Amino acid sequence: RLIMFMYHFISIHVHPFWIQFFYFIIIDLFGSLLLMVLKPTDPDFKPRYVDMFFLSTSALTVSGLSTVTMERLSSSQIVICTLLMLVGGEVFVSMLCVFCRSAKTSIAELTVNRVNSVRIELETIDSVSTVERIESGTDISVKDFLRTSSLKYLGLVIVVYWVFFHVTGFIACLVYLYTISSSKEVLRGKGINLGLFAFSTTVSSFANGGLIATNENMAIFVRNSGLLLFQIVLVLAGNTLFPLFLRGTIWVIKCFTKNEELDCMIKSPKDSKFDHLLTNLGTFFRSITVLGMIVFVTTLFCSMDWRHPVFNGLNSYQKVVAALFIGVNARHAGENSVDPSLISPAVLLFIIFMMYLPSSANFMPLKEDEEKRYVEPKDNSRGITIVTKFLLLPQVVCVIIFVIVACIIERRRLLLDPLNFSTLNVIFEVISAYGNVGISTGYACSRLQKLHPDMSCVDQPYSFVGWWSDGGKLLIAFVMLYGRLKKFSAKNGKAWTLKG
Amino acid sequence: RLIMFMYHFISIHVHPFWIQFFYFIIIDLFGSLLLMVLKPTDPDFKPRYVDMFFLSTSALTVSGLSTVTMERLSSSQIVICTLLMLVGGEVFVSMLCVFCRSAKTSIAELTVNRVNSVRIELETIDSVSTVERIESGTDISVKDFLRTSSLKYLGLVIVVYWVFFHVTGFIACLVYLYTISSSKEVLRGKGINLGLFAFSTTVSSFANGGLIATNENMAIFVRNSGLLLFQIVLVLAGNTLFPLFLRGTIWVIKCFTKNEELDCMIKSPKDSKFDHLLTNLGTFFRSITVLGMIVFVTTLFCSMDWRHPVFNGLNSYQKVVAALFIGVNARHAGENSVDPSLISPAVLLFIIFMMYLPSSANFMPLKEDEEKRYVEPKDNSRGITIVTKFLLLPQVVCVIIFVIVACIIERRRLLLDPLNFSTLNVIFEVISAYGNVGISTGYACSRLQKLHPDMSCVDQPYSFVGWWSDGGKLLIAFVMLYGRLKKFSAKNGKAWTLKG
Ligand SMILES: [K+]
Ligand SMILES: [K+]
Repeated sequence: RLIMFMYHFISIHVHPFWIQFFYFIIIDLFGSLLLMVLKPTDPDFKPRYVDMFFLSTSALTVSGLSTVTMERLSSSQIVICTLLMLVGGEVFVSMLCVFCRSAKTSIAELTVNRVNSVRIELETIDSVSTVERIESGTDISVKDFLRTSSLKYLGLVIVVYWVFFHVTGFIACLVYLYTISSSKEVLRGKGINLGLFAFSTTVSSFANGGLIATNENMAIFVRNSGLLLFQIVLVLAGNTLFPLFLRGTIWVIKCFTKNEELDCMIKSPKDSKFDHLLTNLGTFFRSITVLGMIVFVTTLFCSMDWRHPVFNGLNSYQKVVAALFIGVNARHAGENSVDPSLISPAVLLFIIFMMYLPSSANFMPLKEDEEKRYVEPKDNSRGITIVTKFLLLPQVVCVIIFVIVACIIERRRLLLDPLNFSTLNVIFEVISAYGNVGISTGYACSRLQKLHPDMSCVDQPYSFVGWWSDGGKLLIAFVMLYGRLKKFSAKNGKAWTLKG
Repeated sequence: RLIMFMYHFISIHVHPFWIQFFYFIIIDLFGSLLLMVLKPTDPDFKPRYVDMFFLSTSALTVSGLSTVTMERLSSSQIVICTLLMLVGGEVFVSMLCVFCRSAKTSIAELTVNRVNSVRIELETIDSVSTVERIESGTDISVKDFLRTSSLKYLGLVIVVYWVFFHVTGFIACLVYLYTISSSKEVLRGKGINLGLFAFSTTVSSFANGGLIATNENMAIFVRNSGLLLFQIVLVLAGNTLFPLFLRGTIWVIKCFTKNEELDCMIKSPKDSKFDHLLTNLGTFFRSITVLGMIVFVTTLFCSMDWRHPVFNGLNSYQKVVAALFIGVNARHAGENSVDPSLISPAVLLFIIFMMYLPSSANFMPLKEDEEKRYVEPKDNSRGITIVTKFLLLPQVVCVIIFVIVACIIERRRLLLDPLNFSTLNVIFEVISAYGNVGISTGYACSRLQKLHPDMSCVDQPYSFVGWWSDGGKLLIAFVMLYGRLKKFSAKNGKAWTLKG
């Protein structure tokens, strides 16, 4: 009962930003402690707290950068990481938000109903146009009722959507691993349990987490184009194309059940005030933006690097699928099919641009106008706290500040090792963390030894940030958290923040 | 008479963007032909047309990048470059705009007056409130008259301002060169005429052009802190602090002459619709932004690089002045006091950020609100041509596209010579051209030979773009022109564009 009261109190009186902020911070700290307590398989491997905190943050914010070798983690640690990605994914968080708001609305409605009934009682005293007022009163409560129940239905639809993709994804992955022997051999050779791998990869792809249990990420499966292709579907369903798929799901369910609320949801999606439910036109433009960028970057990548070492030993079909996989993952998921440090600079720059864009980005002018009309009226609110104001700093300026701070922290390495610690790589890493993408250019000893042939160096299969100092790692962890909460400062989230 | 008619026709019916566009294009082509016709001093040096076109564009758009060795140009070519910078400088162009608009207004006024007199004649027929209408009519024409004459006065003030700084700057520079023997010796040794040098340097500094007749730019005078300090004043007066200085000048002239129009101009600067004439608060915030950034970057630069090779052999005072000089020049002028390739990455990143900002940038929230209120009402215009729409593409996206195209054009060099052709250097060069700044990281053969010890290479004292292919050079020339006209797409210029 106390818990219920607390829950209601928080969901009504606390700003959504703070709810999400504490949700992430608390789970993050809890997860990092769990990861510390569980021992890795390899007894020689004693991870430091800063690395485990980084891993926990990275998994929870679905970023997917790592500062440790994934295969040295024990199965229980992989499970924890997977669970963190599960509760940090965009679909899951937005599902929680819907339930939170539906509770809020039902309480508010209760109050409104009470007021309404009192008003109706009062109004029976004077006889002028009582009937009309009662009618309008009932109209309001019917509308409210429809809205609350439509929120509940929305929540249910998202649960169905979420469960469906996880189950089918898991089964498909498992079937693929058992039937295609080359992929099974790879995992057997590494001593990774097939079921665990299928589970963690499905969750990671759908949450756009990007943490895979193998050292090479998905690059080791670059010849298993089938596996890559259905990971692509999961990745798109879990984030950038969620509005399209969600609308499709609602439409399908509506056709089968003839439910009125669902119909209402499709016709006036703004009433539900759910970020991922857009009008037909909005969904169309957002999907076109996503698909257009994927096609563009895949074409650019293929045309620039077709004969380069990045695609060594692949046939044409595998090259195209690998490029497509990178194109899809550059937006948010961050799984690799190739070594990103071998991609040519022009493509890397475009990938940086894609990583920087939030998933709600939209290039069509019409949509922007529409959205503006929606946001404008609430723009002159004064109830923004200082933290939200800091978040409202223009995003580019924030990213530039983060990059400059990173360069200051790592200044000695930038001077000593300019090929690995090139400014572009630092920018890439910071923007990858900011966009919660997790693609990293990595670190190659061969590049260090080009300039300093006498220095000893052992290649490590983790992200570039793993080679940074502790200060740099903590900075990147902060940037990942900031990036996960950036929607509260971006234009799309602004309306919601100010309204909340 | 025909010319007068043409002039009036153009100034009234043609969009200001097109006037400036053709102004720049025509002078640019004319200048490049002149530079081709005039022979360099050195008979072995046969410049190609693409280089001369680049030089002409660079001088006219006050960018200051160059693809040829400055000291191999003849005096007449230097004079042409100086004249190009003279007519391309922001103060000069805005002066022309004021005269253009004052002509336009006087014609419009003539029409209004005619209409007014007709109206008054008509109105004497009906007797109802004729007197009031006549009074309001006279009110309007008095206001119009005040506005036209205030535009003319504004033009005069800018002329005085412009002449004053050129004359004092030239005299001060000449006196300095004659009194301080070390600076005189440098120029004697290079065979550069002192008067020509003083003239071209003054024009270059005031126009924020950044082309200096010496190979080393101002870096050769790094020990002549006095010379650097008063170039700083010229640089600030000619662009970023122009609003502050202009307001000061108007105020001073007003105090001496007690002129009514000037008083009116100071009190309601928006009536004159001149971009550089702001309210007290606006001027204050813009100047604070400029000075704050200069102080910040100077501090950052000194703290990061105090003991680094970039300041080799300087005493503390000279170091501070050199850092201050870079800080002031990074915003627009682009003269160097040190070798930019030795500056540490964190400072370089901040310099890139400063170069990207237009001179009208403002960090204070109050000012933005004020500006918004001013811009908003005109926002729903429909008369934008396609070219202006292209210019209205978000600026960051344009810059990213330019950088990606540059990387595609120079892809072979990026692969072969990653230390010189690092992506950061390409980004730096493109943004330097876009911001019309002209600082360049240059090219060092030592960096090439670190990776390829056997390749022969001769250092050249020109910008990094001088090492690019012809396609790359033409791209940068286009970016410089685009950058010079960017105010038509930036927020500040938008109001004017849509209104024009
Ligand atoms: K990710
Ligand atoms: K310049």
